[in-house]
Amino acid sequence: MSHTAELIAVGTELLLGNIANTDAQMLSRGLSALGINVFYHTVVGDNPQRLRAAVELARSRADIIITTGGLGPTCDDLTKTVLADCFGKQLVFHAPSARRIEAYFQRFHSNHPMTENNYQQAMLPDGCIVLDNDWGTAPGVAFKVDGTHVIMLPGPPRECSAMFTHRVLPYLERLAEGAIVSRTLKLFGIGESTMEAQLRETMNAMTNPTLAPYAKEGECELRITAKGDSPAAALALIEPVEAHLRTHFGPLVYGVDVPSLESVVFALLKEKGLTLGCAESCTGGLVAKRITDLAGSSAVFRGGVVSYATTLKHTLLGVDPGLLEEYGAVSQPVARAMAQQARQVLGCDLAIATTGVAGPDPDDRGNPVGLVYIALATPEDTWVRQIHLSMGRERIRHIAASHGFDLARRYLTGLPLDSSPALTEEKSS
Amino acid sequence: MSHTAELIAVGTELLLGNIANTDAQMLSRGLSALGINVFYHTVVGDNPQRLRAAVELARSRADIIITTGGLGPTCDDLTKTVLADCFGKQLVFHAPSARRIEAYFQRFHSNHPMTENNYQQAMLPDGCIVLDNDWGTAPGVAFKVDGTHVIMLPGPPRECSAMFTHRVLPYLERLAEGAIVSRTLKLFGIGESTMEAQLRETMNAMTNPTLAPYAKEGECELRITAKGDSPAAALALIEPVEAHLRTHFGPLVYGVDVPSLESVVFALLKEKGLTLGCAESCTGGLVAKRITDLAGSSAVFRGGVVSYATTLKHTLLGVDPGLLEEYGAVSQPVARAMAQQARQVLGCDLAIATTGVAGPDPDDRGNPVGLVYIALATPEDTWVRQIHLSMGRERIRHIAASHGFDLARRYLTGLPLDSSPALTEEKSS
Repeated sequence: MSHTAELIAVGTELLLGNIANTDAQMLSRGLSALGINVFYHTVVGDNPQRLRAAVELARSRADIIITTGGLGPTCDDLTKTVLADCFGKQLVFHAPSARRIEAYFQRFHSNHPMTENNYQQAMLPDGCIVLDNDWGTAPGVAFKVDGTHVIMLPGPPRECSAMFTHRVLPYLERLAEGAIVSRTLKLFGIGESTMEAQLRETMNAMTNPTLAPYAKEGECELRITAKGDSPAAALALIEPVEAHLRTHFGPLVYGVDVPSLESVVFALLKEKGLTLGCAESCTGGLVAKRITDLAGSSAVFRGGVVSYATTLKHTLLGVDPGLLEEYGAVSQPVARAMAQQARQVLGCDLAIATTGVAGPDPDDRGNPVGLVYIALATPEDTWVRQIHLSMGRERIRHIAASHGFDLARRYLTGLPLDSSPALTEEKSS
Repeated sequence: MSHTAELIAVGTELLLGNIANTDAQMLSRGLSALGINVFYHTVVGDNPQRLRAAVELARSRADIIITTGGLGPTCDDLTKTVLADCFGKQLVFHAPSARRIEAYFQRFHSNHPMTENNYQQAMLPDGCIVLDNDWGTAPGVAFKVDGTHVIMLPGPPRECSAMFTHRVLPYLERLAEGAIVSRTLKLFGIGESTMEAQLRETMNAMTNPTLAPYAKEGECELRITAKGDSPAAALALIEPVEAHLRTHFGPLVYGVDVPSLESVVFALLKEKGLTLGCAESCTGGLVAKRITDLAGSSAVFRGGVVSYATTLKHTLLGVDPGLLEEYGAVSQPVARAMAQQARQVLGCDLAIATTGVAGPDPDDRGNPVGLVYIALATPEDTWVRQIHLSMGRERIRHIAASHGFDLARRYLTGLPLDSSPALTEEKSS
């Protein structure tokens, strides 16, 4: 039997536009991976009558209702009260949750006493399944009444996402019949529309597994999802499709079910016992920031120089001032020298360097916005990629940093480095 | 008369979680600034029956319906067809829009011929106001039937946002009576629950203006919103409240209607003709990244050193190896020396330094996760703040970097720097 879920986000801050409803995106992605239909999202404010109307409507057309938000200690947090009432349940004091909230306070708020309001968070619908919240104070809740599953999650995206992964998924997986498995290929160096054009016919002909392309921040993802009687059966359907796609896209595929390009580079460096460093101009610390976002990165990352001012490229990195004079800071020879000098100065095996024009204006030599040189220096050789992106400052910086990681990934896996993928596409539909 | 708007986003990609409904956030913010109530957002897929149900429901409870999405050439003009039908209108060919679409294609898609589908975008409800789209191909539409205003906008956020600002706002301003104005105070160094506890009674007693607190990423915001007959009248209601809050929270308020701490530091540096640099350990490039996120930052930012490996603190920054030996890399004296050396090595007026344990494990001297020293070196003196945060790696890094900017902000505005705010709270609601 196929299930239909409906999402209700509760919070006046959403209706005022203070925040976007990213919880709905996260939940929708997770539900669709389970093969659960989602036909509507609703956002409603901190108003009992309007929340009740949204719940009654959802109940009439879905068998799973998931709410986000409105579980906090302040008086306008009304989700539990309204939902309990709609489904004929009483709120009762749940002592273990009260103990958890107390413990959470002792750990994180030692200078703030708990208030009576916080105990309100331990009032839960009778007979519900309590979804312990290890990421905040408000417990989540699940119950089933007359064939409708009701799940209530806290609103802050960090908590909501952790609660969904660790508490709700196991609950929903029991509802699903058979198994749904998906694998996501990650690609760098191809635009979404090119990828889609190459796959359109294949995709339209597929029913199980299905193939879904996504584009984000200069990368592409291809998610293969299969339904089978067991996880093994579903996986068996995925494997030939995955093999075909890997052959088709070759070195553009940087990983499967991996979080990011930098995580792949991190794992490869660790495996090979090599170290990384960077010299950044236009990316201004972003390469270093992205690699040090990863826990344990100190095992492979030596450090970096952000030589934003041109003189620092000489004084700190030791780039030949003659090169800077002759070619300018944004040039192929300077990118090369920055990477090579970074290896020396930082004492690392591999060094990524970036120099370019992130915008909003061209540089003083007339180099256009979006022109970036990205170099990788290694014990064997140095490679430089030139890209020219027509997009905003933030995306230029992000994609330039990704190119640095892509060069390192290619070097560490023995792939050719001389090809410079032209990644100038932008989604616009 | 006060108006109520309801937003309906059309697109299966939203229900699959491929994208977040950021259009709704943008529109909600704009509508609330006009004093137009928004009580519901709905997201519905590319399905005529379900869109019709959402429209009929919206019509029963709002007098302004704004749809986003479903105007593209590939979706069979679902939105226009359904909405025209619901409101008893015919779709008729609008020649000027067809000419605009042709011109747009010639300009941006010279390599793609226009298809018949594109002409479909020029089929518009009879008697409607056409909202010319200068940012894409699909024109927007507005019409009024039996007291209900219907506005349809394209889905891509860039187009939707431009269309709202340039086409819809003038339309809605004619409907609105009175004015709503809001100002947002930004605070650093106080937790949300402390702030709320201090304001609870005041807030509960207020009706116009109202006061809304928010917490995000280690900072707090206080939005004051007032309704008046004119913008000036609304502002006059805000001013005494703002003055009171500024006095109450004193140096914790770092700005009003400003985007971020770093943007305040950037503006102050620019105003005073001073430069900034940084030496980062646990923040690993994040201080540099955040300041270079700002367009024009090269005017004030010299560069930075990410001395992730301990030896680089000596070789690259010139920190006395004796200090490193005696106190360890995560220590008050090393933070101080890093900032002072960064001033020398980078040739900047102010230098921010960070050294700490971002986690997931304590360092080799047994310093606990979340312990961070943040230093600011200036021509006059050097200050070091010690913080200890019980949270995840990403938030520790973010908040540590924010402390660096806060020190710089305090120095640049002549505030005392010796107080070290204990910022260990976390929002959870």
